[in-house]
Amino acid sequence: MEKLNVLPELVKSESKDIAPTTSRRSFLKGGFEAMGVATLASTPAIALANESIQSDFPTWSTTMGKGLNDYGQPAKYESNVKRGIAKAYGDLAPGTGSARTPLESLEGIITPSGLHFDRSHNGTPDIDPKLHQLSIHGLVKKPLNFSVSDLLRYPMISRTYFIECAGNSSANIIAPNPIQGTAGALHGLISCSDWTGIPLATLLNEAGVDTKGKWILAEGADSSGMSRSFPIEKGFENALIALYQNGEKIRPEQGYPMRLLLPGWEGNMSVKWLRSLKITANPTHTKDETSKYTDPLANGLARQFTFELGVKSVITKPSGTMKLPEPGLYEISGIAWSGAGKIAKVEVSENGGKTWRDALLDGNSQPFCLTRFRAPLQWNGTPLFLQSRAIDEKGNIQPTREVYKANNAIDGRYHNNTIITWAINQEGVVSNAYL
Amino acid sequence: MEKLNVLPELVKSESKDIAPTTSRRSFLKGGFEAMGVATLASTPAIALANESIQSDFPTWSTTMGKGLNDYGQPAKYESNVKRGIAKAYGDLAPGTGSARTPLESLEGIITPSGLHFDRSHNGTPDIDPKLHQLSIHGLVKKPLNFSVSDLLRYPMISRTYFIECAGNSSANIIAPNPIQGTAGALHGLISCSDWTGIPLATLLNEAGVDTKGKWILAEGADSSGMSRSFPIEKGFENALIALYQNGEKIRPEQGYPMRLLLPGWEGNMSVKWLRSLKITANPTHTKDETSKYTDPLANGLARQFTFELGVKSVITKPSGTMKLPEPGLYEISGIAWSGAGKIAKVEVSENGGKTWRDALLDGNSQPFCLTRFRAPLQWNGTPLFLQSRAIDEKGNIQPTREVYKANNAIDGRYHNNTIITWAINQEGVVSNAYL
Repeated sequence: MEKLNVLPELVKSESKDIAPTTSRRSFLKGGFEAMGVATLASTPAIALANESIQSDFPTWSTTMGKGLNDYGQPAKYESNVKRGIAKAYGDLAPGTGSARTPLESLEGIITPSGLHFDRSHNGTPDIDPKLHQLSIHGLVKKPLNFSVSDLLRYPMISRTYFIECAGNSSANIIAPNPIQGTAGALHGLISCSDWTGIPLATLLNEAGVDTKGKWILAEGADSSGMSRSFPIEKGFENALIALYQNGEKIRPEQGYPMRLLLPGWEGNMSVKWLRSLKITANPTHTKDETSKYTDPLANGLARQFTFELGVKSVITKPSGTMKLPEPGLYEISGIAWSGAGKIAKVEVSENGGKTWRDALLDGNSQPFCLTRFRAPLQWNGTPLFLQSRAIDEKGNIQPTREVYKANNAIDGRYHNNTIITWAINQEGVVSNAYL
Repeated sequence: MEKLNVLPELVKSESKDIAPTTSRRSFLKGGFEAMGVATLASTPAIALANESIQSDFPTWSTTMGKGLNDYGQPAKYESNVKRGIAKAYGDLAPGTGSARTPLESLEGIITPSGLHFDRSHNGTPDIDPKLHQLSIHGLVKKPLNFSVSDLLRYPMISRTYFIECAGNSSANIIAPNPIQGTAGALHGLISCSDWTGIPLATLLNEAGVDTKGKWILAEGADSSGMSRSFPIEKGFENALIALYQNGEKIRPEQGYPMRLLLPGWEGNMSVKWLRSLKITANPTHTKDETSKYTDPLANGLARQFTFELGVKSVITKPSGTMKLPEPGLYEISGIAWSGAGKIAKVEVSENGGKTWRDALLDGNSQPFCLTRFRAPLQWNGTPLFLQSRAIDEKGNIQPTREVYKANNAIDGRYHNNTIITWAINQEGVVSNAYL
């Protein structure tokens, strides 16, 4: 977090509304002014001595720049913005574990493909698209095999969808005391892309599903043989065979040359490197849905097939390991999402949930998509507990950690959509906290 | 273009509507069926011999995959998907020219940042963000200097906006006979990103614009000193100081660490590597708005300050240099945009504009943003002239090349938003054509 040279003029002025919607005005009026920002003693902006500004031109203004290139990369000054890697078995299985999206460094709702999170069970396979096939078989009238080039001829749709790992934020459940880290390290198994692909319903209709076919077993071509069962209704409702991610072909770590995409459902079900869809009468109970991805409950039973992800939000700025350099005005920025559809509302609290106020939702909320929210934070130098709480269009609301712990077994960890708390101490240091 | 193993079942079946909106059903009903696709004799899908499919597992299913990595890249099999480079002075000035977005290889509406087009006048400067400053000065009450870290404290908004070079598609105007190339080579100076930044109005209000201040001179920190004047109203309406592009910090070729973004206006005005905004009483008439970026007219005069880009569309699939392998059903996919706001409608023609039918707009159209459109193409093996024609929310419609040529001087070339024609010959080869 950096020092802000502002802002009496910003708040006092009768500014024109500059945003395409009316949200900006309401933000300034309802946000900054409601927060009493106009009375804030802020550091004045740096006044220029005269108009002959920046008279010493830097080298980059006086020398020829770098030549054109055919595939661009981030600026070298941003080389610290990268996925955080957590290997499950170190160098024994370098592809088993996760690479997490650095949420604290990102803005907007699109995750750059190079920073999309990756949770893999045996690494990223090197699949030759000319040799890869997708089979649809089992309880169908006509089993079908599709090459990638077959599929590229089909009608497609483009949608912006998030993917979240069922194990995202699990450290905040299983660790008895809060682990300290960035927002990405703690909650970075969530990313969002503009996906393009073929509605699975198109292919199911072509194969002709038998009336006995009620489930689909999806299997990946990687060497972990990642396999999940899902109800056939989801296949007809909004499942995609995704071939493109953020405009270009899907990235290797996200399933090149194709992945299943089940919008709003736990990420591992959106099977990467998809090779087979088998229509079955019942769920298959694969290793990935019995030994893994079930939820042990407080009553001693385990809940299987927890498909839909809960409504959730995380404040990305300010967030863990950051520091507010001084009292003053800051912008809270964060992301919210729900497996049930659109985000209806996000609230923020500065007192650990005692009182809440509305955040601004930036842009139009889309179903199964990240929504960026923003709110002003007037920090007066005293410690506080910053929280956000999202509500979706179905009325679902984020629970507290206490509620999760009461409903789940002591080793439960999946589907943690509880309210996240960032503590800010009197030095302005932001840390992960439990309340 | 690849062979499609379809689709009587797809069309005949009473499929459930799988898209989140009702658009898919209307596409299938109004599109494929209206096109008589159900009567198409198509190649049947490959029937599997039995359910023991793909019994020979490929290497990637039996060996450990690649390890996790901190910043992903496209699959090696996609290495041909890159920006096409047109250097203006070869190796004498390797950064002068353009790198064009390969539109024909992309889907959806987001351009991956590595493939965003780049039009530079003297290369990409290597700017240290710690040393860069933005100055707002001239006719203001209080001149201001902002460091990058100052700006990162300000309230931001995120919006998906296209940027198009005023010279995009100029080859189709100046070449007496159609030049053959891909959609990207001919029309790839258009890209679209999720931008996050500070509304310029916020900073203008902080500086306090003098009542005599009617224009703003924006100047880049690159060694071409790219400079453009724009009316101050645009600065208050929707101009952004963009700091983020598709989630991460703006890429060097797009203006790192910041660019001005004037939504819907010709791309060169969205000054990259922005260092100075000077408030003036009148336009400055810089070299970049007198010798360049003016439009010589048929009547001998030149039109200066043609800010707003026209409504436009381009079919990206099928497009130049592609080949339809055989008669059959294909999906037309393309992008449309307008400098005046949202896209209201896109029409396609297979007979060079004699008759038109509606394309499907995929998703919700947003202002100053690409809209993906789709339509079925039933190709029976006879030559045809494929066109698209976009209409925006203000009722603007794409003109023909003939109209452009009549209204502009013989060497006019900017702001070519005319209807693009792809000819398909009897072998299925797609080429650029004038009608």
